[in-house]
Amino acid sequence: MSWAKALFEPRSVAVVGSASPGKLGRVLIDQLLAGGFDRVSIVGPKGHGALGVPGFRSIGEIASPPDLVIVASPADTVTGVIEDAGRAGAKAAVILTAGFSEVGKRAEEQALLEAARRSGVRLVGPNCAGIVNTKASLFPTLETRPPAGEVAFVSQSGALGGAVLAWAEEQGVGFSKFVSYGNGVDLTDVDFLDMLRTDDDTKVVALYVETVSDGRAFLAAAARLAATKPLVVIKAGRSASGGRAALSHTGSLSGSDAVYDAALRQCGAIRVAGVEEMFDLCRGFTTLPPVRGKRVVIVTNSGGPGVLAADAADAAGLEIRAPSETLRGRLAASEHLSALGSLANPIDLTVQGMEDGYREALVAALDEADAALAIDVNVPYLDSAPIARGVVAAARATGKPVAACFMAGRTVASALPILKEGGVPNFATGERAARVLAAMGRYESTRFAVRGSQCAVHGAEPAVRGAQFVVEADPKALRLPWAGEGLEPEALDWLESEGIPTPKRRLVTTADEAADAVGALGGSVVLKVVAAGILHKSDVGGVILGVETPAAARDGFARLRQVGGEGFRGVLVVPTVRGGVELLVGVSHDPQFGPVVAAGVGGVYAEVLRDVTLRVAPIDAAEARTMLDELRGAAILRGARGSRPRDLDAAAGLIAAVSFLPLRYDDLRELDLNPVFLLEDGLVVGDARVLRWGAAETCDRGGRP
Amino acid sequence: MSWAKALFEPRSVAVVGSASPGKLGRVLIDQLLAGGFDRVSIVGPKGHGALGVPGFRSIGEIASPPDLVIVASPADTVTGVIEDAGRAGAKAAVILTAGFSEVGKRAEEQALLEAARRSGVRLVGPNCAGIVNTKASLFPTLETRPPAGEVAFVSQSGALGGAVLAWAEEQGVGFSKFVSYGNGVDLTDVDFLDMLRTDDDTKVVALYVETVSDGRAFLAAAARLAATKPLVVIKAGRSASGGRAALSHTGSLSGSDAVYDAALRQCGAIRVAGVEEMFDLCRGFTTLPPVRGKRVVIVTNSGGPGVLAADAADAAGLEIRAPSETLRGRLAASEHLSALGSLANPIDLTVQGMEDGYREALVAALDEADAALAIDVNVPYLDSAPIARGVVAAARATGKPVAACFMAGRTVASALPILKEGGVPNFATGERAARVLAAMGRYESTRFAVRGSQCAVHGAEPAVRGAQFVVEADPKALRLPWAGEGLEPEALDWLESEGIPTPKRRLVTTADEAADAVGALGGSVVLKVVAAGILHKSDVGGVILGVETPAAARDGFARLRQVGGEGFRGVLVVPTVRGGVELLVGVSHDPQFGPVVAAGVGGVYAEVLRDVTLRVAPIDAAEARTMLDELRGAAILRGARGSRPRDLDAAAGLIAAVSFLPLRYDDLRELDLNPVFLLEDGLVVGDARVLRWGAAETCDRGGRP
Repeated sequence: MSWAKALFEPRSVAVVGSASPGKLGRVLIDQLLAGGFDRVSIVGPKGHGALGVPGFRSIGEIASPPDLVIVASPADTVTGVIEDAGRAGAKAAVILTAGFSEVGKRAEEQALLEAARRSGVRLVGPNCAGIVNTKASLFPTLETRPPAGEVAFVSQSGALGGAVLAWAEEQGVGFSKFVSYGNGVDLTDVDFLDMLRTDDDTKVVALYVETVSDGRAFLAAAARLAATKPLVVIKAGRSASGGRAALSHTGSLSGSDAVYDAALRQCGAIRVAGVEEMFDLCRGFTTLPPVRGKRVVIVTNSGGPGVLAADAADAAGLEIRAPSETLRGRLAASEHLSALGSLANPIDLTVQGMEDGYREALVAALDEADAALAIDVNVPYLDSAPIARGVVAAARATGKPVAACFMAGRTVASALPILKEGGVPNFATGERAARVLAAMGRYESTRFAVRGSQCAVHGAEPAVRGAQFVVEADPKALRLPWAGEGLEPEALDWLESEGIPTPKRRLVTTADEAADAVGALGGSVVLKVVAAGILHKSDVGGVILGVETPAAARDGFARLRQVGGEGFRGVLVVPTVRGGVELLVGVSHDPQFGPVVAAGVGGVYAEVLRDVTLRVAPIDAAEARTMLDELRGAAILRGARGSRPRDLDAAAGLIAAVSFLPLRYDDLRELDLNPVFLLEDGLVVGDARVLRWGAAETCDRGGRP
Repeated sequence: MSWAKALFEPRSVAVVGSASPGKLGRVLIDQLLAGGFDRVSIVGPKGHGALGVPGFRSIGEIASPPDLVIVASPADTVTGVIEDAGRAGAKAAVILTAGFSEVGKRAEEQALLEAARRSGVRLVGPNCAGIVNTKASLFPTLETRPPAGEVAFVSQSGALGGAVLAWAEEQGVGFSKFVSYGNGVDLTDVDFLDMLRTDDDTKVVALYVETVSDGRAFLAAAARLAATKPLVVIKAGRSASGGRAALSHTGSLSGSDAVYDAALRQCGAIRVAGVEEMFDLCRGFTTLPPVRGKRVVIVTNSGGPGVLAADAADAAGLEIRAPSETLRGRLAASEHLSALGSLANPIDLTVQGMEDGYREALVAALDEADAALAIDVNVPYLDSAPIARGVVAAARATGKPVAACFMAGRTVASALPILKEGGVPNFATGERAARVLAAMGRYESTRFAVRGSQCAVHGAEPAVRGAQFVVEADPKALRLPWAGEGLEPEALDWLESEGIPTPKRRLVTTADEAADAVGALGGSVVLKVVAAGILHKSDVGGVILGVETPAAARDGFARLRQVGGEGFRGVLVVPTVRGGVELLVGVSHDPQFGPVVAAGVGGVYAEVLRDVTLRVAPIDAAEARTMLDELRGAAILRGARGSRPRDLDAAAGLIAAVSFLPLRYDDLRELDLNPVFLLEDGLVVGDARVLRWGAAETCDRGGRP
């Protein structure tokens, strides 16, 4: 029997804990029975039964041994209980008991895990809020028993999980399964995502997570799941991005939350800001057919709310197109719609709009839209039921997604059951409905092209979606070709050996050599100090631009000699690049996800605005092109204000190539290429900084310390 | 009797319309009686009474004539009804009848207004949803009768107004007054804002508006109101910003919605995106004491929701500071809190936190915070009532604002009445509560310094807050000092005469003069074509930078001679400016608000990102400084990445000076100064473009066509 079957479809369950009134064991028994599951026994020191459930002193005494054990006994008994459970043949245990790693008792938790491994028992918890499988009427949890439905909810936090279950009925969301995994000593996010991918009772997976157990494995599992069904994620801790040491410029631009954000998008998950948005999306995904495009029509009986919804739709990336001539003709020909003054989008039926008007307007307009939003701002003296019937009929006739916003309160009470029965989700505001349609459309458009899924690691095509996130240690791993601190000359030589375009250059150590270099490199040059300990040359006056004469080069050399101080090794002379748009490209190392590649627009303005986009590395060139499109300053690369378009293919190729470097070079920690001059044809790296792992700082490439 | 008193506190009311069952007149009578107002009569063609209310054939027949008339009779009778009402001594009328300007009948609506003026009757409507005064038990409206409270709601849209009233009970918001003004032929937004400013029953004003009646008058009234009590505004039509012809660069950067956004902030109003946020804010403002700072402490019994709320608080601009050493000591000394593991913010009391724990933690933490958010993620087996009592006690003891988020559903049912009774508003999520505290704090911080209120128009100190928005036509108005198309030389000469720093320059008409100018202007110059019809010189190759020799100047002149074509007037030679940060400063004309001043960071990147901030003109230098602070690229001006800070005072002075120009020059329509080179000491205008009003396009300076 698999752990998943033992956990969610056990033939029988044993609860370990006190059966006395008010004690957790008793509450759990009560919940199980009230939920309709009676193949239960209770195990406690006194062997008392309760509520008609037989009691035992140990799991071994139970005649028909349980597949699943629910543990609520004191912390110091738990390891023994798991060993007993294993001996009795149980395959899974849910440990509600707290008092392990969350209060610093890591050794005890580790001992528990080892006992479970030895005993063949898979663990949920400890310190969790239990699980639910509504289909099996199984509710071993202290939380509110939620209504049945098609959403599976996985929550790292027990309390938040419980609040969601308690709120579900009011929000109109039902659950297939719920699991709170607490400290996650054994089974965690990755296991549940993999299990739910093939769970036929689950149409949507919602996940609340504070930190993921293993960044790369999580992304792989999330990518596999998201290709099959929607994955809605609340990741808490958006603001707590400080704290991490960032030595390179790329590193400082890649805050921990920004990496989470990129990683979640990259694997096709839908990140939401909070519980209300999660409920809204779950309702949309479970009730509506897929949203296969961005064109939305809004049909309303009141101007204002229609405009507010249109504003929100526009802000969410939907298209609110005006009706075509054909559609306008069709609407005007309808006896129920002919009186409409202006036929725009939103289509305002005015207070005249009733069952036929809504139905005909929606059916006609959905001919040239991918989804619709029906708004009824109801007045108390009007019956909203016929309007709901018209909306439902249109949804049925077209087979397209139709969301509703029937406002408000008691005045639309008669409509709500009709909408629900008809599979039309009703949202509190048109704005919320619009955001749901937008997110559903984005999901559909990325579902079959999860970002970077086509990318090959070390040339091998990944067999499974999400495989690019799984990076094995490479026995042939390379090392950076220099000892000690690498400065710009070493970095550029290395990049050149990797096939990355670098400038012509001379490293000079005398003023005479500097003067000679001007002519040799073509008339206008840049002088840059090369000195140990100087990482940010511009900040200390270590770069001199536009040097055009031998005399100026001598002067410049003298100044940089001063700047370099004791660590001075020479001056790097490179030709002035004209007409390039500056980019920055780099890799850094995220503690959770390992190597991360960044691309951004260069120059001080972009840096002040942090116009940078990230991906978990590696990625291919196609994915790198989508990164460039995401930049707020993307228009500059495409040729804004009369300038010519830049070589985006070259930029994408560079980003992809750079993204593989930290996976191929064992000791490469961070790399900044800044600026990269992107030309109309090709590019050239203007400066390069490399940070390598120190001897004490090695770290495997998946991000696990 | 004032119109406001007649409207909201009439001694008696006449309803004009059919008293037959199902007809609007009958419904209105029913509403009035059900609401508790019985000093009513009904006027219809047959003179029938209904529901015990006496009926008459005309208003003149009523023995004790009404102060207020509610009109629901057919459109073609309305003007006659108003004349009757005036003769009978009524001072106000609410016209629910539709069929006027909203269906194109402007002349009929104008005739109605003229009849009202002649008759001494002030009008609400036509095409409106009625009014409410809960204190007077007055509900002449077809919409749901809302609960009483301290929010006044003014809605341009009747339907949205009705939906808000119907939703109010569920949302826990009560109303003092409601008015839907529909077509607003007479009384509009401005009148109601002025009236509500001094209405003692109203603590907060909420406004839904699609277009304001008179931009400048609206801003003046809103500024006066917002200095007295909070004004929460939903302005629909955010996305519908296209359509407006924008000839200048400044104009194209100042979309209509962006001007609304700036104008609303400028007058101290709080713009919200939708009805839910409006309800949340109204609840916060009516129940909580003022939020006098940004420091918020979150006390919770569960990690996850606390973190989500902290994320939202951070994003909304609040500060979530860690407790001081002193506070940590105080918390650790409490018998109810001593068991807490880590004392951070959020303070997580864990499931152990009950009445005493919440009270003590909140009281202690509010010593160093301006507001608190108490979160209870309740489990079903826990009674939330004691927690609510602890929260209420802390709010009472400290007198500081404490918001709550008790999650969820039935599990916190026993807490909600305690919170309500204790004046602690409960929000659906911690995120929403955090956003309310943030908005309340922002209101408090700007309340006594409404932006630009100190600014003087023509040197006269405004006597009343908001006075700067009222611009009277100036009999001494100036005109631009040239005829026909003004090009850069005329524009620069004019700006110089206005005391604005312009570059040294020579307008040359031969290659020899161009060559001479190089030496005369200091070695490196810029050549710019001056030619009729060429407004955007860079886009046509009309600017040559970095010309350093007489030979290069001759070549450049020849090229620009070609570029200039038939309209060629010469070449403007100016010195190259080094080391300046580029700004753009300009004024444009908004159809709603009149002259608008814009400031932004220059350069192609900033322009692609539209990093521009706006104000309704004129403003003073202090306000201009706050504009510079709002720019996303503000750090560049203050000296980012090792560069030196720029002369922000000079920039602010320029912006303020420019903001007065369209008020002083009658024919100035739009002005672009782009780039302005902002130096470490002072600034210089790099280029100037002027658009003047054509003879056919004059428009008064308040924005009214």
